[in-house]
Amino acid sequence: MKATVIWRHGGSDVLSYEEVKDPKPKKNHAIVRVNCCAVNHLDIWVRTGLPGMTLSFPHILGCDICGTLVDGFGSFGKGEKVVVYPAVESDAPRVSFSIIGGFSTYQGGYAELMQVPQRNIVRKPGWLTDAEASSLNVSYLTVWNMLERSRCKKGNIILIWGANSGIGSAAILLAKAKGLKVIAVASDKMKVDFAKKLGADFVVDRTRSEVANEVINQTDGKGVDAVIDHVGLKTWPISIEVLKIGGRMIACGTTTGGDATVNIRSFYSKEAQIIGAYLGSKSQLVALHRFMKLKRIRPVIDDMFDLKDASLAHQKMEQSSQFGKIVLKIPS
Amino acid sequence: MKATVIWRHGGSDVLSYEEVKDPKPKKNHAIVRVNCCAVNHLDIWVRTGLPGMTLSFPHILGCDICGTLVDGFGSFGKGEKVVVYPAVESDAPRVSFSIIGGFSTYQGGYAELMQVPQRNIVRKPGWLTDAEASSLNVSYLTVWNMLERSRCKKGNIILIWGANSGIGSAAILLAKAKGLKVIAVASDKMKVDFAKKLGADFVVDRTRSEVANEVINQTDGKGVDAVIDHVGLKTWPISIEVLKIGGRMIACGTTTGGDATVNIRSFYSKEAQIIGAYLGSKSQLVALHRFMKLKRIRPVIDDMFDLKDASLAHQKMEQSSQFGKIVLKIPS
Repeated sequence: MKATVIWRHGGSDVLSYEEVKDPKPKKNHAIVRVNCCAVNHLDIWVRTGLPGMTLSFPHILGCDICGTLVDGFGSFGKGEKVVVYPAVESDAPRVSFSIIGGFSTYQGGYAELMQVPQRNIVRKPGWLTDAEASSLNVSYLTVWNMLERSRCKKGNIILIWGANSGIGSAAILLAKAKGLKVIAVASDKMKVDFAKKLGADFVVDRTRSEVANEVINQTDGKGVDAVIDHVGLKTWPISIEVLKIGGRMIACGTTTGGDATVNIRSFYSKEAQIIGAYLGSKSQLVALHRFMKLKRIRPVIDDMFDLKDASLAHQKMEQSSQFGKIVLKIPS
Repeated sequence: MKATVIWRHGGSDVLSYEEVKDPKPKKNHAIVRVNCCAVNHLDIWVRTGLPGMTLSFPHILGCDICGTLVDGFGSFGKGEKVVVYPAVESDAPRVSFSIIGGFSTYQGGYAELMQVPQRNIVRKPGWLTDAEASSLNVSYLTVWNMLERSRCKKGNIILIWGANSGIGSAAILLAKAKGLKVIAVASDKMKVDFAKKLGADFVVDRTRSEVANEVINQTDGKGVDAVIDHVGLKTWPISIEVLKIGGRMIACGTTTGGDATVNIRSFYSKEAQIIGAYLGSKSQLVALHRFMKLKRIRPVIDDMFDLKDASLAHQKMEQSSQFGKIVLKIPS
């Protein structure tokens, strides 16, 4: 089969589209013919490598998959359209799980075929395109989990960083559908307009004004109920600063990595909380499908690339020039 | 009246025992003749000053009070023994409250008399001595709040730093009474013995072994359900490292101050939480009184000093050579 593999960590030039062996069927596993694989920041972190994380090469990236079952099993029929819930057991201590195509022994979806545990197979929602369905298993699921963990109620105010990213755009859509008031952060005029189009009630252009001041003014000095923080290092101190008394910052994987700083006194004296969110559960993915159908929300797809052009997709994401999800189309 | 006041921030030598004016009765306030005032780290932070916090001088320290009502009001009789719930409204934005005798306009309990809002008056539990009752309003209340916020259930494992301190000793006592398994950290043989006597199931001497390794070994690599962290800067990274998947670190005021560091990936990939706790509510103080009576727990008093010797009490706390609470006795 054809796949885009990496033989070492590095820049987008290490992505190599080539002929590789088909996966050998294993017990309790299913082989999926991949139709679409959405690109996530995780793909870039795996490609570049992260301190302390090991990977065996060649490795096939890709964790956000929609495809077709090569063979049926249980109640699933041969040729049935499915998506893949991407979490598998982790060998590392005190880590919730590993992710298929990520830092795990499971090869990912930048390929014509992939093999995953049968229990990770989920029916594809029929009303979504393959590209849309492939976009929900990682960033949308993570956002769904983050919003649940935020314990926000209708009318609460939530701050969302990086409005144009997969996580950011998903968060605006889902938070609005849950009845929250959304303050979004974007980094230029086009991204501000995009965030408003998605439904954000107020958007701060961080290149033109100071985020903390704007958020505090917008909330009459009280601060926000919750923050969706997927940026990290640079944003944690601001996220905590703008939380109201008892506010929650929900933190997932971060694009500015490493160690973040928390001012302890400011944190405890407002009885704030920082809540880690890593992906979500399979039942949350099913609930997300149901919610999006009920609310008639479709994920925002920015662009589609052919699998062989995965490096262009990575470059676009690394430049943060996307508006929503970037999806790879696998030729059939 | 006599009081120990500070006229400027500084070392323990700025504590000055002198004659000051009696408080002038104000509407909806009560005047308390102070019998005992327990010493807390907050007293030291207020004495030394903290960046960004202002105070008007002369200031009377002391937030942990047991005394006698000079006049009755409502259902409280003249001469009734009471304790003072120490939180009052804060002027600072996004701060839960200020603390009487702390960075607030309310003068504290290092004095013969003090004036507090009537709504802060709580009946003294009759079965406790004045010194014991004075010890519960700050560190014990904070610990009670932290344990509630930890959402630990019977049999869960909790890590408690600084076993000999007011917070540490309170946490061991209350966590054991709630049926938790306690791993405590102490810094010498005597403190280890003290922690064991209080009921800790396992004590790490941090001067002899590496805390993270010991805790991870003790929990078969799984980590702890929760950590009570009142140290801060130095301990946050270890506290987070030893949390199990979904574990909670509860953070209150910190003795090693400033900005703490959180490794974002390690934090979110175990879906950990950091939960800020600031004192507790008045109803939690009443619940704490009830719980301690039910479980027949008395706070651990290390030492009593005369009000005029407050500087010796501060020195003892700054050397961390106490075993439990240090209490000032106010001469009547």
